[in-house]
Formats: sequence, structure tokens, C-alpha cells
Amino acid sequence: MIPAHRYAERLARLAAVARAGGVDAVLVAVGPDLEYLTGYRAMPLERLTMLVVAPDEAPVLVVPRLERAAAEAALRTDVRIATWDETEDPYELALGDVGTGGAAPSLLAVSDRLWASHLLRFQAARPGARFAPASSVLRELRMVKDEDEIDLLRRAAHAADRVVTRIAAGPLVGRTEVDVAREVRERLIENGHQEAHFAIVGSGPNSASPHHEASERVIRAGEPIVLDIGGTLDGYGSDITRTIWVTGGDPANGPDEAFQRLFGLVREAQASATAAAWPGTPAEQVDAVARGIIEAGGHGRYFIHRLGHGIGLEGHEEPYLVAGNSEPIEAGHAFSIEPGIYLEGRYGVRIEDIVVCGRDGPIVLNEAPRELYVVDG
Amino acid sequence: MIPAHRYAERLARLAAVARAGGVDAVLVAVGPDLEYLTGYRAMPLERLTMLVVAPDEAPVLVVPRLERAAAEAALRTDVRIATWDETEDPYELALGDVGTGGAAPSLLAVSDRLWASHLLRFQAARPGARFAPASSVLRELRMVKDEDEIDLLRRAAHAADRVVTRIAAGPLVGRTEVDVAREVRERLIENGHQEAHFAIVGSGPNSASPHHEASERVIRAGEPIVLDIGGTLDGYGSDITRTIWVTGGDPANGPDEAFQRLFGLVREAQASATAAAWPGTPAEQVDAVARGIIEAGGHGRYFIHRLGHGIGLEGHEEPYLVAGNSEPIEAGHAFSIEPGIYLEGRYGVRIEDIVVCGRDGPIVLNEAPRELYVVDG
Repeated sequence: MIPAHRYAERLARLAAVARAGGVDAVLVAVGPDLEYLTGYRAMPLERLTMLVVAPDEAPVLVVPRLERAAAEAALRTDVRIATWDETEDPYELALGDVGTGGAAPSLLAVSDRLWASHLLRFQAARPGARFAPASSVLRELRMVKDEDEIDLLRRAAHAADRVVTRIAAGPLVGRTEVDVAREVRERLIENGHQEAHFAIVGSGPNSASPHHEASERVIRAGEPIVLDIGGTLDGYGSDITRTIWVTGGDPANGPDEAFQRLFGLVREAQASATAAAWPGTPAEQVDAVARGIIEAGGHGRYFIHRLGHGIGLEGHEEPYLVAGNSEPIEAGHAFSIEPGIYLEGRYGVRIEDIVVCGRDGPIVLNEAPRELYVVDG
Repeated sequence: MIPAHRYAERLARLAAVARAGGVDAVLVAVGPDLEYLTGYRAMPLERLTMLVVAPDEAPVLVVPRLERAAAEAALRTDVRIATWDETEDPYELALGDVGTGGAAPSLLAVSDRLWASHLLRFQAARPGARFAPASSVLRELRMVKDEDEIDLLRRAAHAADRVVTRIAAGPLVGRTEVDVAREVRERLIENGHQEAHFAIVGSGPNSASPHHEASERVIRAGEPIVLDIGGTLDGYGSDITRTIWVTGGDPANGPDEAFQRLFGLVREAQASATAAAWPGTPAEQVDAVARGIIEAGGHGRYFIHRLGHGIGLEGHEEPYLVAGNSEPIEAGHAFSIEPGIYLEGRYGVRIEDIVVCGRDGPIVLNEAPRELYVVDG
């Protein structure tokens, strides 16, 4: 659990960054931004709940009156609450104090995940203002994880490790992907996750679809499975991928040579990129390390996605390890490293770990073996 | 399951409504709008997936290349797919064909739930265009449920009914709210829900917080519980509230007279508002019927929320039964009717059903008894 004092520190730092950036107010929506700043986890809804952080004002949480008690109970730091009744205008309430020092606000930052319907209402209420994504002021804070956050990410990673190991132990052959995916979700919860967000079970040719939705296909002996699973534990995400080959107990059904070669390339790309994740390395450089190895192996055109994404309160967040992102990674950044090769219609391979960039080099949070899991299934 | 032909019909109707409204394109985001129009259920992510529906063009689904196979497998109607690679600009890809007949687009409608970060990118790409919420063109379609949708809502309602009945059968006394909430979620899944979205278990004074988050409070004999639960079954929502009084087996611990009076008022308000839900009745009038009864009983100021909300692919959607919404409800509209009275620090009462406005009057989908559940617990 995040200690309460952290929230006050984060709010103060956000106000300072906003001031430095000339932002009149940060309009923080329900979701990961609000949870990061106050500990309040709520469902995004059509009724506006919004934290307003302005450089020279105490933060205010605007909530529907019927949510007041729930918000008070969940808040882990001291913010003033302003409630609105069903027939009142929450947008004016949220903007009320912003820019009253003089002119109307000229620059407002809004949470990336704020619903468009809410943003359009704010824009209509302040037609002269410019709106920017809140990530422009929040990203620096949220990207650098403190020790408590890393601890939660590690606990989530270890729980996911246990689920991967359990699933690889079988049975698998003869079951549908959907059935295995259901087991994955149950076991994530069993292992301490509050939510199981995804369970990609791509068997046989489906392993070549990186974001395959588990289907009614029955798993057979003599084929690979790409297993990519994750959810949240105390708000923080897990995300791990391992590649399994099921033999059905018959060694003759083992992985063919071409597949072993693909796997070897991905394994080498994953290990080398992980080793490159030191403070100061440009994010795109980590991607390039993995991509270079797969390209040299002749499969560059089949590695069709970026190398990785940040992870924390969101399953995908900054920094993104992708060509074009020249920003250096820093100590405290946490991200996935997940190269893959996908031969459409045939099969695919992916290996993914969550890695923290430490001051003295990369720290890999996942501990499940990274080798090809050749199992009876 | 929704028959496939419905999706093509919905897309054609949306194009017609957009044309009539002078909308150059509807930018449909991942979420309920996309599922309604194509059957494709996907997670909202930072990588843009977007259906573009323009009046005189065939609809196009813009997807990240790595999602292509998953999208193809999930789409239940015929739409062209346009993929983008990790370093390409999906916003230009989505807008590419819009308005090429002549001038740049002047009016673009965007899904209400589109993330602000995506909307800001679209606005930057087309600074001259006006952006409106897609509900302005989609609401008429989505509000009127067809028979297949009503069937799914009914199945979801009956599943939730069974869970309420099971939970009311106990045990309850001596357990924490969180523990009961966990059982609610498990039983929703057991009864056919794919997702359990909320499980409000407000015991004793917590029953006076309408959106109470289940806490570590231990349920005691001689107090009420407001149980408000729901999730989705094949995409469609359930949402039911019943009020329980636990005696611990001792009749002396039964509900006091004041509580019984509150309950009677809410019961009467709920029944009368339900009976008023005929085609042509203004939405706010249904709210007013319930509110009038509670006001006449002297508790108007403790009924602190609107009477109800629409329900379908979203847990809360139009129409809203609230003062200020003078639009008539119509045959096929589906909504909650959920009056409540909340005495802060003491206790509260709420009763909620999902009701469909039928041609010949209201059809109540929930079948669990609406009386006060006085149980041993």
C-alpha cells in the first residue's frame, strides 16, 4: 500500500510542474491520474467527478453529492470536496475558481482518459482556453516509480509468474482457448489480483495474432501457445508473456527446427534489449537493440509492434519503447520488454517481462523461466 | 446474441442520421458505440482503434496492425479494415477520406467515451472543424432497444435477481461488507455474467451513502443493508437494488417504525413511478412522480439523486430520468427506476428495477420481490 504522505507530495509536485508550465489548472479525471494523486479509485461515469489542481489554490475534488461519502472514505490525502446536485452544472463548479485572479484561464490540462463528452463541455464553457493532455505535466511524476510502487509491481509480477507456471503445467491439449483463458483469470484473482484484464491464449496459427482474443479453438498436440496475461494487484499492473509448445507427451510432436530458430531469435532479442535498459539510454535505442537482432536473423518484417510500454497504474503508459521516442529512460521507469515474431497463418513467438530501470542497471521483476516451455500439455 | 444483420442496419441508419444532421463523419471509439455498430468488443487503449462512419462512404475500421487479426475475428459485419504501423499517424489515417469531396470536414462527431488524449489529437489535425458528441447522432438509435437487446437485458436482470435472493438468504451477520461484495461478484459470474461491475453493500449507517464502497465494517443484527449490484451479460447490463434488514434471528431486532415508514414511502414512490413509464411521458415526469410521493412524506431533501438512468451496453446511458429532461420516453427505452431516502449517519433505503417502456405500458424486467427483506441474516 502506498503510504499516505506520498499523495500530498505528489499533489505539491504537480502544482509546481503546472506553475512552471504556465498551466492554469490540471483537470484530473477519475482513473489512474486521480488514483495516483489521491488514492481515490472510482469508476468513470457520466456524472463528473474531477480533481482540480491549480498552482496557487488548494486542490478541490468536485463530486456528485451522492458520491460524497464514498469519496471521503476513499481519499487518502487532504483535499477539499465540492459537491454538486443532479440539476447543477459541474463544469462551472470545477472551473469556478480557476483563473479568478485575473483573466480567464488560457491553458488547461486534462487527464488523457477524460471522456470526450466531458472535454467538449469544458471546451464549450471556456472557448478561449487552450486544452492540453495532462500527461504533459503528469508524465514525469508518474513515469518515475517510487519504492512502494516498485514493490507493488513486483508483487503483481510474481503473482502472474505463478499463474504462468501453473497453466504451463497443464492440462492444455483438448481444451479450448476460452477455457484456458477462464482459468487464467480465475488464477490471477486467486493469486491476489483484484482484476484480471486480459488472457491472450493464442494456440497454433492464432499465436501469430499478437492481440488474439481467446477463441473456441481446441488446443492440439504439436503446436505452440503464446500466453500473455495480466491484471492489477492493489492498482498496479502485471503483464507477462511466455511461449509454450505442447507435445501431448509424444517427443515426435516437439517444436520443429524453424520454430526453435524463431524462438532463439526472440529470446536473444529479449535478453539483449533487457541488458540495454540503463539510465540514459534513449527509449528507441532499447527497441532498436531487439529489432536489430531479429532483423539480422531475417525476420524484421514479422516483428510488427513496438518493443514495449510503460506500466504502473495503467497497463500501458509512458515510456513507450518505440522508434521515434528519443527520450532517455531513467531510474524508476518501469516497462515491458516484449519482442515477438509472427508468421501469419503459421505460428508466432513472444517473450515479455516487466523491467524496472534501476540506477545500477535493469531489474527484471518477473521470475518465471524465459525458455520455451516444452510440455506434455 | 444479436443477429448479424442488425449491425448492417444500424450502420446504415447511423449514416442516414449523420447525413441529416450535416455531420461529415462519426468517429466511433472502442467501447459501447463500436460494439453496438459492429459487435467488436475491444479494450480502450492508447493505440487508436476507430470506426469512421461518413454519410457517403463505406465504413472503415482503423486498427493498429497488430490488432488486425483479432478485429477480423470479432467483427460481426462487413467493414473495410485499414491498419497502421507503430510509427504511422492513425489520426490522419482516420480522417484521410473524410471531406475529400471538397472542403475539409466542418462537423465531426466523436464517441462520448473517446479518450481526451485522442480527441485533442483529432482537434489538432483539423483545427477548423467543430466537434460534437456522437451521442447527438447515436442516442436515438441506441436508446430504442430491439427485441434481441431486451432479451439480453432480461437475462441479465434475472441472473441478478437470483444473486440478490441468494445473498439475502444469508449468512450476513458477522461478515464484512467486503466479504459479501466478493460473494456478490462471484455469484454474478456463476449466474452467467461475464463481468461484475459493482457490488454496493451498505450496512447500518453506510446504507445512507448511495454509492458506498464496500468496507471492512462487520454487519450486525438489527440494521439494514442496501444491496445494489450489477454487471454485464453478453454485453448488456444488470442493475438491481434491494433493501434488507437483518435481525440475527431475534424478532426484537426487527426494523423500527421510522425505518418501516421510510421503506413504505420508497416502495410507493418506486411502484408509482414505474406505473407512469408509458410512451410519451416526459422523462422528468417519471422522476417527479417518485419525488412528489417522497416529498409529500416529508423526506424530499433526503432523496438526493435522480430517479434513474438508461441501461444497455452501458450501465448508465440515455435516457436519464431527471428534472430538466423533458424528452418523452418511448417504446423500447430501458432504464432503472430507483428512488431512495438517505438519512446521513443513520440509515438509508433504495429499491431499483430495470424497466422497459413497452407500447402497452411498463415492463419490469426484475422479478425478485420488492418488499423489505426481513431476514435472520
